[in-house]
Amino acid sequence: MTLPRIGVTVGDPAGIGPEIIIKAFSRPERLPAAEYRIYAPRSVLETEEKALGIAPARGRAVFAEGREGRVSLVPGEEPRAPFSKGAPSAEGGRLSFLYFKEAVEDAGKDRLESVVTAPISKAAWSSAGVEWRGHTEYLDNLYPGAIMTFWSERLKVALFSHHLPLREALDLVREKHLYDFFIRLRKGFRSAGLADAEFLLAGLNPHAGEGGVLGGEELSEILPAVRRARREGMILSDPFPPDVVFRMALDRPKTVAVALHHDQGLIAFKLLAFETGVNATLGLPFVRTSPDHGTAFDIAGRNAADPASLVEALRLAVRLTAASL
Amino acid sequence: MTLPRIGVTVGDPAGIGPEIIIKAFSRPERLPAAEYRIYAPRSVLETEEKALGIAPARGRAVFAEGREGRVSLVPGEEPRAPFSKGAPSAEGGRLSFLYFKEAVEDAGKDRLESVVTAPISKAAWSSAGVEWRGHTEYLDNLYPGAIMTFWSERLKVALFSHHLPLREALDLVREKHLYDFFIRLRKGFRSAGLADAEFLLAGLNPHAGEGGVLGGEELSEILPAVRRARREGMILSDPFPPDVVFRMALDRPKTVAVALHHDQGLIAFKLLAFETGVNATLGLPFVRTSPDHGTAFDIAGRNAADPASLVEALRLAVRLTAASL
Repeated sequence: MTLPRIGVTVGDPAGIGPEIIIKAFSRPERLPAAEYRIYAPRSVLETEEKALGIAPARGRAVFAEGREGRVSLVPGEEPRAPFSKGAPSAEGGRLSFLYFKEAVEDAGKDRLESVVTAPISKAAWSSAGVEWRGHTEYLDNLYPGAIMTFWSERLKVALFSHHLPLREALDLVREKHLYDFFIRLRKGFRSAGLADAEFLLAGLNPHAGEGGVLGGEELSEILPAVRRARREGMILSDPFPPDVVFRMALDRPKTVAVALHHDQGLIAFKLLAFETGVNATLGLPFVRTSPDHGTAFDIAGRNAADPASLVEALRLAVRLTAASL
Repeated sequence: MTLPRIGVTVGDPAGIGPEIIIKAFSRPERLPAAEYRIYAPRSVLETEEKALGIAPARGRAVFAEGREGRVSLVPGEEPRAPFSKGAPSAEGGRLSFLYFKEAVEDAGKDRLESVVTAPISKAAWSSAGVEWRGHTEYLDNLYPGAIMTFWSERLKVALFSHHLPLREALDLVREKHLYDFFIRLRKGFRSAGLADAEFLLAGLNPHAGEGGVLGGEELSEILPAVRRARREGMILSDPFPPDVVFRMALDRPKTVAVALHHDQGLIAFKLLAFETGVNATLGLPFVRTSPDHGTAFDIAGRNAADPASLVEALRLAVRLTAASL
């Protein structure tokens, strides 16, 4: 069986990205077998290795299932200017964008099945003149219709909309947009090997509108879209009260809670899966996952970062790409 | 020291209200000392006592702190028509409204410091022709500006708005309304004995608007209201990202998370405190608390109901009224 090829991007070199990558790959026996390619400047990794006194596995290694896989470096441009650990800088922004872009391009050319992204700094991207706010916006622009999903042991959440003012998010709750989203959602989970996923839908209004008394969108927009998607065989519920649906979805491996806007889903997810959750973007020609934390500039360079969420992101990337090989 | 007088209303007689009341008062040693007055039809309680084979304490009893208090019945109208356990009916609606109204009137006349309400059925109230949707709407009409709060061991939440369509809830997010609410909120907690409460505020938009990029209300409406309230000495934070603020408020006894709409607060609260949470209405001339569950018609009459949440509601009622005695 072919091993999945997983690109791992360094993230902001001044953040905890290099540290958690080195820590994760210094113990490959915790990871599933794959062909891992680390997209990072050689000097950044080597400096970090010295500081930490450990090094990632290089070349062939034995992974969790006792199978062999490979860890290699995909080096590229070196830093042009010095940058300080623990602070956003234009140079950190430039490098983190460059390596991310390269991995995404390689994945677009079928050289990778998956891209796992260590955290970048939006402030650094902005000061480097990068025109996208972050990973998600870049991917959204390249592949419109990408879907943000959040994975943890107890709960999986998919978002209908994400980085929008709440008022604009409400304006998107229209039958047509919802129906298109449901179809993409099902396709995204299917191509990630979860053809039998069942989707529990949150309503928009308190008590899911309570028959129209507390808001009309459930009856006028959401239910018609749900019925159309169900006619195509999708396992999708009627809209449930938002303060009930996430609890209903707990501990059900095949169930995905579908949130109609960013905070509906993320309030629930972050309460349950702080620091071990994983973010996966579906609906791309490849799978992208990332840990559920930021650059953590405040602890960068202190050997205090925990690679647990990155390890989960690597595991999920392998799991979701296995289906397509 | 005077004991607080706590009215306990029966709720829908066809639901689990009578059962959890009897179970709670059959073991007064779990409750704080108070003068408890149960507002319920005598026949309903007696029928339930026989079915359960237990009876509530009557007259003087010894409570948790080893102090004496009293449990008495405030009987009133008996059922005019038969009703079936486990189903909403007009008669159940009529009776549950009647006893609730009487307790609220007694509290308004300073005969009670607090009212603890067992769950009613909105469907039953509606079929009895009651013009209010539920307890909260009745109290809101009588005492405009009442504040819904939710209490559990790990998290306390206050809601800026509650039973409104989300779109209308957004329209309320205006400096003037927010400022008025903050002042009432502080006053409500102060009169409940929590003068030193600190309030952690949720923003409205993803990432609390991220400096205006993801929504403008934080800068144009919320921050100006926050600053005004702080100038009056209120301990109130800037708006935090909604998916972060509830986690920040966990396990901090003096901290209250303030949600700007119903589901923002209740998604968090219900995930953390399912079945043991308590609802308290502040800003009334008395304190009202209630268990965080409904009539549970599906298990009514089976001796399967757990009085834990009612016990918590009784404890909180005593705790919040102790300050005013």
